[in-house]
Amino acid sequence: MAAGGAHGGDTPREIEALIDLMARLPGLGPRSARRAVLVLLKRRGALMAPLAQAMAQVAVSARDCRICGNIGTSDICAICADDRRATGEICVVEDVADLWALERAGVFRGRYHVLGGTLSALDAVGPEELRIPDLIERVATEATREVILALNATVDGQTTAHYIADALAATGVSVTSLAQGVPIGGELDYLDDGTLGAALRARKSF
Amino acid sequence: MAAGGAHGGDTPREIEALIDLMARLPGLGPRSARRAVLVLLKRRGALMAPLAQAMAQVAVSARDCRICGNIGTSDICAICADDRRATGEICVVEDVADLWALERAGVFRGRYHVLGGTLSALDAVGPEELRIPDLIERVATEATREVILALNATVDGQTTAHYIADALAATGVSVTSLAQGVPIGGELDYLDDGTLGAALRARKSF
Repeated sequence: MAAGGAHGGDTPREIEALIDLMARLPGLGPRSARRAVLVLLKRRGALMAPLAQAMAQVAVSARDCRICGNIGTSDICAICADDRRATGEICVVEDVADLWALERAGVFRGRYHVLGGTLSALDAVGPEELRIPDLIERVATEATREVILALNATVDGQTTAHYIADALAATGVSVTSLAQGVPIGGELDYLDDGTLGAALRARKSF
Repeated sequence: MAAGGAHGGDTPREIEALIDLMARLPGLGPRSARRAVLVLLKRRGALMAPLAQAMAQVAVSARDCRICGNIGTSDICAICADDRRATGEICVVEDVADLWALERAGVFRGRYHVLGGTLSALDAVGPEELRIPDLIERVATEATREVILALNATVDGQTTAHYIADALAATGVSVTSLAQGVPIGGELDYLDDGTLGAALRARKSF
């Protein structure tokens, strides 16, 4: 019995431990984790048991793709293993979440390279921590025509983009980056000055 | 490979299934479930495996207390099994969440009775669905002095309170309910009219 535990007098220790683990997920604080666990407790057969099983299964089967860094269930992810994907184009993203976002949009049919973060002097993240050497090796060995830098439009993201562009300059591969401008459906009145300026500088004939 | 799945081109089927299950938790939509699963995927050893294990363990060990309806890990919950808790007072709550809230506050040292909801003509919830017969039997067999109705101040909650008070009228047990009034730290200016009215009607000498 965990009398006097963080979640109230006599909540059993196992349930408290579960709440604490759930609270470590993004989007769930201590309160909402408790609420989520209560729903799980009420739906033990229909939701909790299947969720535990799905999680245990993925925890065992998930692997980082050893080519691109995507997360899948085999040593080489489904995208790298797919013959129909163009091999000459590598789209460089910070994170698996960005790869998934591009895949949801369905706008890119080449290969990816997941850096796993951005260069950061503050957090002491250098190129070696980021799979940048792997990228340079891939560009050399995979007959790459184009490297598309799809990095976030943040200071660290753009620093990383410049670093990669410099590192690839000698290889002769074409290095491009995502266009910046007005988002589709965006209203000028609500856009920040930086985006407006970038959109104006990159204007094109109508 | 689940090509063209709901979460983007080539997310493996097991990961998609996990996202779908996570999205059924309160507080997580499809987007935040995906974000949570990504965090789990990145922290497979440190978070995902322990969480899966904790969840599987609780899914097996959790039970509804057969006396009060609280959720614990044995047939009789820690509160009902605790000799130090007063036996003459039963605090009636709608839901386990309410019981946990009262336990966190640490203000009640008697026993509880969890109804599992409120009477609702609309949803066809009658007394039989709510462990109300169990409550009436407990009052008769446990030498109960007082039944405290700690039900939500909603229409359904108050309907249920009245029903229980009527059902217990013949037993001679004292039936009370939580005081209504100004919350501690509450500012009158922000209170609703109903609460202000209740606080004024229940005014006491200073």
